[in-house]
Formats: sequence, C-alpha cells, structure tokens
Amino acid sequence: MKAININSKLNLINDLWNPRVIAELNGQQVKISKVKGEFVWHDHKNEDELFIILKGTLKMMFRDRTVIVNEGEMIMVPKGIEHKPVADEEVWMMLFEPQNTKHTGDTLSELTVKNYDRI
Amino acid sequence: MKAININSKLNLINDLWNPRVIAELNGQQVKISKVKGEFVWHDHKNEDELFIILKGTLKMMFRDRTVIVNEGEMIMVPKGIEHKPVADEEVWMMLFEPQNTKHTGDTLSELTVKNYDRI
Repeated sequence: MKAININSKLNLINDLWNPRVIAELNGQQVKISKVKGEFVWHDHKNEDELFIILKGTLKMMFRDRTVIVNEGEMIMVPKGIEHKPVADEEVWMMLFEPQNTKHTGDTLSELTVKNYDRI
Repeated sequence: MKAININSKLNLINDLWNPRVIAELNGQQVKISKVKGEFVWHDHKNEDELFIILKGTLKMMFRDRTVIVNEGEMIMVPKGIEHKPVADEEVWMMLFEPQNTKHTGDTLSELTVKNYDRI
C-alpha cells in the first residue's frame, strides 16, 4: 500500500485520448487521461462510467443535450447512454469504470486504444 | 446526467467521519467525508477501498507501517488489511468502494454510521 500522486502520474502522459490505469479495486479501474478535441460517439452496453475533471472544462455531449463539466466537477454516464466527450482546450480527467470497459465502446475509430497501460 | 460539483457537496457536510454518497455506479459508491482525529482499527473482509485526498493530509496506519497521503494523492487499501485513518488536521476526502461497504468494517464503535445519506 502506498500513496499515489495523481499529478505525478498525469505528468507521465504525453498523448491524448489514451487512458492509463493507476489503480484497480473490486473489479473496477481508476484511469487518468489527457484529452483535447472531439472524441467519437459511443456507449457502453454494460458499464456505467464516471468522469472526474481535474483540469479544464469537458463538454459531455448526449444526443439530446450537452452538459458542461468544469474542473472539480464530475459526471456519471449510465450504461447504454450514447455520449461524446469534447474538449475545446486540454482536459485532464480521472475515470472510474469496470476493468473491461472499452473507451470507445463498440465503436471502432482511429482513436480506439486496445490496451490500457498501467502507470 | 448532470455535473456534480465536489466542493459544493463537501460544503453541505458539517460533521466528521460521516460519509455521504454522491454517486453510484456498477454496484460501487462514490462517497465524500470530512474527518479529523483518529478513526478505529478495522478491515473490510470483501471490499477494497480507495481514498482520494482532496484537502489536508491523511495518515493511513497499517499494523506494520504508516503511509502519509497528501492532498492530490490517493491510496488503495485492499480487502482484509487492517487500517486506521488518522487526521491531525481536518481532511476532506473522496472514497470509492462497493455499495455495501461499512466504514468501520465489522468493528462497532461510537463512530459507526449505519446509513450513508445521499447528498
């Protein structure tokens, strides 16, 4: 058991839309990611997903509305709900979700990462 | 789906060692709590527990060592490991753990809270 410094882990990341795992517990993973620009529309059939915004402002688009999520805020996206994260400026975020969650759901795109490194 | 401001939720809390639920997903809960002083020794037989320190410095005591967890850091305590959180000054923290996790484990004390309010 040791303390994990979240900013130190973020400083190891030099790319976008490529989540890294920083902790695992109860079949869930804690991931961190830097993002900028538009992601792809997708959903997760069986997994709820929590986004905690550590820096910047995320626009979480849903089919019927967009929710602004500022630094220090979080949003839970329930399973089966289509969403598209958009960041006009770079956003740093933390994610809580089940171990097998694919970040683009069943949508395949050039942004799809197959394996999430542990850092 | 809406943005949840973590500090706004913390500002609703006026007591210590009394976690509140601010989100639920995948059978897990996100809780926040303000703590100060010494908690009780306990473990969780079946639940791993994640502590994210939002303000202050938590001392997480284990039977063989103490880990200092500063603001912006987190620590995962695996199931079955006895631990005792201690805060010399007030600490604000976020917890991520399964829905049925009791904060004092099987240890009953005057600090034991039976139900965790959703705020």
